[in-house]
Amino acid sequence: MSASTKIRVAVNGYGVIGKRVADAIARQEDMTLVGVADIGIDWRPRVATRKRFRLFGAASEDADAMRRADMQVAGTLEDLLGESDVVVDCTPKRVAAKNVETYRRFGRKFIVQGGEKHEVTGHSFVAEASYEGAIGRDSTRVVSCNTTSIVRTLEALKRAGLLRRARGTLLRRATDPWESHQGGIMNTLVPEESIPSHQGPDAQTVDPDLDVITMAVKVPQTLAHLHYWSVQMTRHAEKEEVLDAFRTSSRIALVRMDQGLSALNVIKELMADLGRPHDDLYEVALWADMLQVKGDELFYAYMVDNQAIVIPETIDAIRALTGRETDASVSMKRTNAALGIGDLRV
Amino acid sequence: MSASTKIRVAVNGYGVIGKRVADAIARQEDMTLVGVADIGIDWRPRVATRKRFRLFGAASEDADAMRRADMQVAGTLEDLLGESDVVVDCTPKRVAAKNVETYRRFGRKFIVQGGEKHEVTGHSFVAEASYEGAIGRDSTRVVSCNTTSIVRTLEALKRAGLLRRARGTLLRRATDPWESHQGGIMNTLVPEESIPSHQGPDAQTVDPDLDVITMAVKVPQTLAHLHYWSVQMTRHAEKEEVLDAFRTSSRIALVRMDQGLSALNVIKELMADLGRPHDDLYEVALWADMLQVKGDELFYAYMVDNQAIVIPETIDAIRALTGRETDASVSMKRTNAALGIGDLRV
Amino acid sequence: MSASTKIRVAVNGYGVIGKRVADAIARQEDMTLVGVADIGIDWRPRVATRKRFRLFGAASEDADAMRRADMQVAGTLEDLLGESDVVVDCTPKRVAAKNVETYRRFGRKFIVQGGEKHEVTGHSFVAEASYEGAIGRDSTRVVSCNTTSIVRTLEALKRAGLLRRARGTLLRRATDPWESHQGGIMNTLVPEESIPSHQGPDAQTVDPDLDVITMAVKVPQTLAHLHYWSVQMTRHAEKEEVLDAFRTSSRIALVRMDQGLSALNVIKELMADLGRPHDDLYEVALWADMLQVKGDELFYAYMVDNQAIVIPETIDAIRALTGRETDASVSMKRTNAALGIGDLRV
Amino acid sequence: MSASTKIRVAVNGYGVIGKRVADAIARQEDMTLVGVADIGIDWRPRVATRKRFRLFGAASEDADAMRRADMQVAGTLEDLLGESDVVVDCTPKRVAAKNVETYRRFGRKFIVQGGEKHEVTGHSFVAEASYEGAIGRDSTRVVSCNTTSIVRTLEALKRAGLLRRARGTLLRRATDPWESHQGGIMNTLVPEESIPSHQGPDAQTVDPDLDVITMAVKVPQTLAHLHYWSVQMTRHAEKEEVLDAFRTSSRIALVRMDQGLSALNVIKELMADLGRPHDDLYEVALWADMLQVKGDELFYAYMVDNQAIVIPETIDAIRALTGRETDASVSMKRTNAALGIGDLRV
Repeated sequence: MSASTKIRVAVNGYGVIGKRVADAIARQEDMTLVGVADIGIDWRPRVATRKRFRLFGAASEDADAMRRADMQVAGTLEDLLGESDVVVDCTPKRVAAKNVETYRRFGRKFIVQGGEKHEVTGHSFVAEASYEGAIGRDSTRVVSCNTTSIVRTLEALKRAGLLRRARGTLLRRATDPWESHQGGIMNTLVPEESIPSHQGPDAQTVDPDLDVITMAVKVPQTLAHLHYWSVQMTRHAEKEEVLDAFRTSSRIALVRMDQGLSALNVIKELMADLGRPHDDLYEVALWADMLQVKGDELFYAYMVDNQAIVIPETIDAIRALTGRETDASVSMKRTNAALGIGDLRV
Repeated sequence: MSASTKIRVAVNGYGVIGKRVADAIARQEDMTLVGVADIGIDWRPRVATRKRFRLFGAASEDADAMRRADMQVAGTLEDLLGESDVVVDCTPKRVAAKNVETYRRFGRKFIVQGGEKHEVTGHSFVAEASYEGAIGRDSTRVVSCNTTSIVRTLEALKRAGLLRRARGTLLRRATDPWESHQGGIMNTLVPEESIPSHQGPDAQTVDPDLDVITMAVKVPQTLAHLHYWSVQMTRHAEKEEVLDAFRTSSRIALVRMDQGLSALNVIKELMADLGRPHDDLYEVALWADMLQVKGDELFYAYMVDNQAIVIPETIDAIRALTGRETDASVSMKRTNAALGIGDLRV
Repeated sequence: MSASTKIRVAVNGYGVIGKRVADAIARQEDMTLVGVADIGIDWRPRVATRKRFRLFGAASEDADAMRRADMQVAGTLEDLLGESDVVVDCTPKRVAAKNVETYRRFGRKFIVQGGEKHEVTGHSFVAEASYEGAIGRDSTRVVSCNTTSIVRTLEALKRAGLLRRARGTLLRRATDPWESHQGGIMNTLVPEESIPSHQGPDAQTVDPDLDVITMAVKVPQTLAHLHYWSVQMTRHAEKEEVLDAFRTSSRIALVRMDQGLSALNVIKELMADLGRPHDDLYEVALWADMLQVKGDELFYAYMVDNQAIVIPETIDAIRALTGRETDASVSMKRTNAALGIGDLRV
Repeated sequence: MSASTKIRVAVNGYGVIGKRVADAIARQEDMTLVGVADIGIDWRPRVATRKRFRLFGAASEDADAMRRADMQVAGTLEDLLGESDVVVDCTPKRVAAKNVETYRRFGRKFIVQGGEKHEVTGHSFVAEASYEGAIGRDSTRVVSCNTTSIVRTLEALKRAGLLRRARGTLLRRATDPWESHQGGIMNTLVPEESIPSHQGPDAQTVDPDLDVITMAVKVPQTLAHLHYWSVQMTRHAEKEEVLDAFRTSSRIALVRMDQGLSALNVIKELMADLGRPHDDLYEVALWADMLQVKGDELFYAYMVDNQAIVIPETIDAIRALTGRETDASVSMKRTNAALGIGDLRV
């Protein structure tokens, strides 16, 4: 692929993640969104057409149903793959496994989401930790929102030589806002049945050296996840040294309680005020003034916008797979600039 | 004021309504946002500067405090008034009364919000119902979100000769999302102590002929209000005739359950997908397929985005007060085009 | 059946309603709870044994599974029916239809819940409205919580000659508390797709003369339903006359906002304070000071504890079917005394 | 005080804790509830009369207001103190400090709640940890719900020689159910501004040797607190050894996910099914099957019913202060038997 042509990208599945990935691709100078594939005929895929994205039916039956419902359809997923260099799979868990066979049959590079197992692609992706390993591969897996946040933060501590082991409690929102009329929990807390929860081992698919154990619980809100960490450091470090370690990541945003950014809803409101699409918080928002060091122990908490945090990673993964950019930091800078990342502080 | 110069508008109070009004003014071709006045030093007014809005302190102490907090301040409210033709007051209830004296002292036209009493300005504004009466006045009051929605819908029925009397049950969200960490209700419903609630009489400040009685209850969610109506019509009308009556309003959007737009959260998600700032729903979203006629009785429900619905009315009120536009429909068309209103259907 | 022997009652299904019915039967002097049938081996049916209720497996496989799980089992549903005069079916919708065949085969009188269709038994029961028609029948259906409250209140107005037509908006809680970890809605409102909702026609299965139309919406809380009514009366009546009409029902409790009973959670707390089992509110709790008359129109709201309100009706239905008590008011007095109904005012 | 006479106890403040303490005292064979003092005239203190508790006005004005509101009043707080050996203060924070002066002036032994500082009494009470130190004292402080649960669980590990240090994340419910119409948080999480939260140091007022650090966050539900712990043990221990350590406390109840007790709401439902007053869970409910050991690290979670957990401690504190019972385990057994503690397993 010549450096002057744009990477042609397909998005399969136009749901909560797919629509954000499509928007993000459309904002990259070195990429073209060829189109999006989906199955429904309700309001959601119709929005794709409103945004002038080409819409494809996942199968020919889907395309036919869309046409019968007066929707503009450009063809099927197979047609879409025919015009694309890479496909980002944003379909639900069960469906993705079958899609992978199709992508392989068409010889297309592909990216799956964190809901799939590591083995599906043999590579798990977080830009700051495993970009290099993805260069030129046929496929990779962008890990889940929770795991992405864990890897971003713990790798920052590791780069500073501070990380010995990390123990986390993860408060998981119960459902996405757009589905909160169909499911969710009400006025209760629902602990995950087993300890440890799966996020620790999942982080180790990106970096096997991480000593991390997590416990998880579902909480009755729709905005974002919230992680609390108790970290054993290799030695005592001053608070400012720890904050500097986190500052080495362009995708960790230090926020402050004493500026009024004191709860999940307030930080989401700031995102809306900044004009971010869907009020998306792509960064891990970590409270700088709340963070505390006690001897060689470190305590902190951060917010994870589970719909948004994997979007920049997905964009970087596209560049890595195609080999168009072999320097992770260059790719991340381009992605950050296109999405407004780094611009959070007020 | 010559038609070629822009109307110079000040916004006093940069909160949940003020920031939306400021954004909307900035989008109008015939208006200039001179600046916004506020009092805080937390993250919120800092966003104004990020958007390149000029920021003024409400009083000189406020301006000083802002400067000490390293914020960029252009002066005080009085400085702001000196450069403006009209001021939109978006301050909290108690504060607004005092501001009115200041506006009068400076001889500035002004708009207050629905929280103020009708008597403060002597005129209550909903564009489709009372634009003409506001032309050239010194001041008007843009009525509350609930009242605005009531007037928009009942006037549409009245214009079609269908309205005899209307009885409504109003489900009011308990707090705005950005304040939901500080207040709200949890796992309960809180009926208003008295029947009727104040919205019926308030609608009569716009149109004294409306026969309308409402009951209200606070519900534990932050997204929007929801109104249910039982209307006695002047005669039987087919459902389609009623829908046509509502279609005469450019600020009522007919939505459909059978397209999946089946709950408040889904409609808000559509707003986000359409790229509306703050996911704002400026229209009354009325479910067309749910609406039912039984003889001479009419039943329907609609959603009211209480942060957004008064924004277009405020823009129209600015044009009416300055006398720049004497045709309500022309003003509304300009406002609608600038805000993307009319574009909701997918 | 001789008046000196107790009515032998079986309860099939030991869930949210079944366990309350069982407790209530155990409190009646003229009834014996023969036992309860269920299917699970989790904590719930184990509670029956803790309360010294005899536990039966719904089928022999269920009984076997219970025995394997070290639970005390007295036999199967068929064994239970063999010892009983009446069975109260409290199983989920789908299951009940099949049970009815079994009850008929065993020649047992039975009561089904409001989830079943009227046709299943041909008679729908609310004690104050249709007790007489159930006397000596083989079966009846105790209508749903919402319908029960509608019939109780509208019949009171009808008895006073005041009812012409009633239009209601029903705020339905989204799930029961004990299931709120598995389902529910979050931070949204979900209108029912169609108007009218089914409760109006359902009330007419008890009294075909009622002119009643309802609209319904799911709200994000677990405590109780809340109904708002707009009633066209036959003539003007003073507020006190209307309250007196409601006072003719022993199962409508007039409560007052100005005593602090101002929301669903507060009234539930009062039930807990009074020592009611499961904090149950058997009465319709109607706010007396909120109620308003405007000419010949009447407006009011009340709370419906959907787990509790049908319990006293079920007890009365048992007496009616067996013909043990042919005077509705005598049965109701016994039921009320045993459950503490009439004792709500503080 | 002779062993044959009953301890005469007063309760000052008939709110969420006071009413539970009063009920619990009334259930003890060796105590007499002399009466309760309060200030309101709404429904709440009226319930005391319904329960045949003597009601006193906090001050003479309060008693007068109660009489004017047709309430039965036995006198003032001072009258109540005159007839009592011990007073349990259950008034809000600000009020309690002033009350303490009154109790001292009257030479009455007294118990304050966990909201007060340790210094107010110089002794902090958890039955299993500090009963002996309270014997014969003039006063003690029953520590808060969160601290009580921490001391109960960590002391159990300490007695088994397993505790080195404990790091906890505390999910705090936002408000009590009966006040959830007046305050609370909605669809968000609100982290405490500082780490560590106050509960660690507070636990050290009971046992200075505990090495415990906590972080806390408010969550949008009203049922109970939930604690997650990561404990460094002195050595590896098998899971069963750890469970045995917890079993040494009669006020820790081991519950199981695999019995369906999988969330806060389900465990509260079990309390209601067991007929506990106010559905109270006096025990720390710790999930046995979720608990996990990894080498010398221990991970677990438990539920804290913040309204209920301090009630048995308060009863024991009464016996300790009066010196009536000098053996902690004997007092606890009496309290447990009277309240049904130990009876949770199904």
